[in-house]
Amino acid sequence: MTDAKFDLIVESFRKFLRRGAITHLSNMVNKMRPADVAQVIRHLPAVQEQRTVFEVIRDVKMKAAVLSETEAPIMTHLLLDMPPHDVVGILRELASDDVADILGHLPEEKAQDVLQLMKVEESEEVEDLLQYPEETAGGIMTTEFVALPEETTVKDAIAHLQETSAKQMVFYLYVTDGDGRLVGVVSLRQLLTVHPSAPLKKIMTTDVISVVTDVDQEEVAKLVARYNILAIPVVDKENKLVGIVTVDDVVDVIREEATEDILKLAGATEADLFQMSSLRAARMRLPWLLTSLLGGMVSGVVLWFFRPAIKDVIALASFIPVITAMGGNIGLQTSTLVVRGLATGRIESADLRGVFFKELAVGMLMGTVCGFIVGVVGHLWHGPAMLGVVVGVSMFAAITVAAVMGTLVPLLLRRIGVDPAISSGPFVTASNDITGLVIYLSLATALLSYLT
Amino acid sequence: MTDAKFDLIVESFRKFLRRGAITHLSNMVNKMRPADVAQVIRHLPAVQEQRTVFEVIRDVKMKAAVLSETEAPIMTHLLLDMPPHDVVGILRELASDDVADILGHLPEEKAQDVLQLMKVEESEEVEDLLQYPEETAGGIMTTEFVALPEETTVKDAIAHLQETSAKQMVFYLYVTDGDGRLVGVVSLRQLLTVHPSAPLKKIMTTDVISVVTDVDQEEVAKLVARYNILAIPVVDKENKLVGIVTVDDVVDVIREEATEDILKLAGATEADLFQMSSLRAARMRLPWLLTSLLGGMVSGVVLWFFRPAIKDVIALASFIPVITAMGGNIGLQTSTLVVRGLATGRIESADLRGVFFKELAVGMLMGTVCGFIVGVVGHLWHGPAMLGVVVGVSMFAAITVAAVMGTLVPLLLRRIGVDPAISSGPFVTASNDITGLVIYLSLATALLSYLT
Repeated sequence: MTDAKFDLIVESFRKFLRRGAITHLSNMVNKMRPADVAQVIRHLPAVQEQRTVFEVIRDVKMKAAVLSETEAPIMTHLLLDMPPHDVVGILRELASDDVADILGHLPEEKAQDVLQLMKVEESEEVEDLLQYPEETAGGIMTTEFVALPEETTVKDAIAHLQETSAKQMVFYLYVTDGDGRLVGVVSLRQLLTVHPSAPLKKIMTTDVISVVTDVDQEEVAKLVARYNILAIPVVDKENKLVGIVTVDDVVDVIREEATEDILKLAGATEADLFQMSSLRAARMRLPWLLTSLLGGMVSGVVLWFFRPAIKDVIALASFIPVITAMGGNIGLQTSTLVVRGLATGRIESADLRGVFFKELAVGMLMGTVCGFIVGVVGHLWHGPAMLGVVVGVSMFAAITVAAVMGTLVPLLLRRIGVDPAISSGPFVTASNDITGLVIYLSLATALLSYLT
Repeated sequence: MTDAKFDLIVESFRKFLRRGAITHLSNMVNKMRPADVAQVIRHLPAVQEQRTVFEVIRDVKMKAAVLSETEAPIMTHLLLDMPPHDVVGILRELASDDVADILGHLPEEKAQDVLQLMKVEESEEVEDLLQYPEETAGGIMTTEFVALPEETTVKDAIAHLQETSAKQMVFYLYVTDGDGRLVGVVSLRQLLTVHPSAPLKKIMTTDVISVVTDVDQEEVAKLVARYNILAIPVVDKENKLVGIVTVDDVVDVIREEATEDILKLAGATEADLFQMSSLRAARMRLPWLLTSLLGGMVSGVVLWFFRPAIKDVIALASFIPVITAMGGNIGLQTSTLVVRGLATGRIESADLRGVFFKELAVGMLMGTVCGFIVGVVGHLWHGPAMLGVVVGVSMFAAITVAAVMGTLVPLLLRRIGVDPAISSGPFVTASNDITGLVIYLSLATALLSYLT
């Protein structure tokens, strides 16, 4: 659906809602794709409107599909006042990972009510899933997979597939030994192209790529992307198959992680900023800003310390913004490259030295160009040739130091086990401002007699 | 493969290469997965070493698989000196989109030699693909899909699948009418679960999500992610099926686009920075830095204009860094949120107003907190109460303006058809520095008599 068409649809929805034209609304909603309905719901401003749209959906399967496409805060609003019995009816249509995800976001009490109403078997499955940390293979996996013993024939396997319900897309058939340990995998395509009486053992691929439940979701996404597979089996410590993570969930993980990294670099740590109240959003972003505020004030202290030079040669003040701006920028540029390189696997531990010297060289080159320009401008603008030299050399030094810091800080943070994305932004910027000013003003103070 | 294990493997490779232990190398390489070999090749520093590893691969299918996993610059190195005949042998094992991708990166002449050696039919397919712009549905699609007329029975369809070669994963069977127009889709799973004599027409889904060849790859990725599909058919203007884009390529697109967006925000426009020479990398990043440099110097001019106030009250200088730093930071934070929101579709045209007022409110809240802190510090540090007021009010105004600019600039850029990611970084930062200084210093100048 194009953006323009989408805007029109949202408009019609709001018109129908204002007029209370529920029949029109219902006709429209029930003809749409679940993902599109979810998208419209997300763009309705009032919770009551969101609920009304959700309630006019006739088919419980569609309700379930819409629900699985909405984000946590909206999902909670939609389900909060619904009788637990109805909630169970909808959840029954969803795969266990989606159910666990939804229950994980409901208030404890409500989730308990719902779990008690579910069939024992179903609720056990969901409770098991709820135990895994959210951002691990266990936390994103589904337990709806097809696994068969290695002796099963192709014919029986096909018959089994025909009987299995179709909540989840099936891509592969997993093959297990007598103890439930994962020993092989067969693609649906393979099933179609071999003799019906062959046992799975004969046709399966034994070199299966799998992950253990506690592997980070980012790692899972990397593996699925690297090996171009549609689903990755998740096993426990004993190599017993406990679930699978499918490529559509991996797509979501990659988007989420990219968004998270971007926002972290900008000092905003939550993806849900647009759904929060302004007050909460401001509170979330404040810690980062206060780091920055502190850094800015330390820069101020540095300036204060060197005030005699500035008072004598006021021209010095006119280059303070450009020195701090350039240091901050280069630092951000370099740290962003390094953080992203680490995240996508383009930088591996093997080439850290190479990356460092490369960024050092780039920093020195850029420092030379910018230093030269600023030096010439300084001389032409304010007179003394030495002023040009001081400004130019300081700019070169500030940029080079910024490039070095921008490379080292994320690498060091990673080494001590801190997520490089979260801390490099404000920290690098503030320390580059300070270093740049110290270099500039101490050089100016030392050469003060040549500047007047 | 874990990072530690990977480092060990790269180490062994380099040891074997140094010693010329080709047999050991070959034994190791030929036991590995193609994606892992490609990963190792990427981490070898010398082109000659990369070639040696590639040459010891025995199986031509594996060679092809490794090639399709390496990035453009390395790929070119590996193929450049290889006889065209051998190149054709490897390319024959690849899907047409990969072949087009590889030939598109080879020097014109070499690519022509290779194309001439290919079978007429194959080369026409590839030449067709080469005509589509790189970042569109046409540019990333493959022509290896399975499409059958609507009258085909399920039995015949399965027979057809069994005969088709397996270069590409098959997820769906597309159904076309007499003129080759796309009319429906059937999943492999469906084929297994219906009566063999049914015609595809009866079982197919007619509500097919498809894209036209010139749709941007980012849009294609959004659709695949939104509707959780494994492949999206690509049609020409007459709705004739010309190719498909599979989810594994979409995963790559999402990663690439996220990386591009991140780097653009940091002012680095190329994803290949790590493979470039330092000189080229510096040259790529310079335009952005020079924008920043210019902005910094304009800030300097502003300072110079207000120098009487600074000379009179040198304490004013000590808040210059914190005012510019905070304005720049809030601007970057806000514009990052907006740019990412636009990219992931969390912000649609429908709610631009809402986003604006939300960010304005957040900006004012953060401005109040930071303004208060800085104001108190200013008063306690330097004496006059009015100095605290000037610094505090300026900080509040600077942050609020920065939040407004950070929201408006990307939205305006998008409206006039410029990619918001590329220009918001340096432009927003520089203009926030300037605005912040103008507010601060003009307020200080106006109230100068109260500050001494």
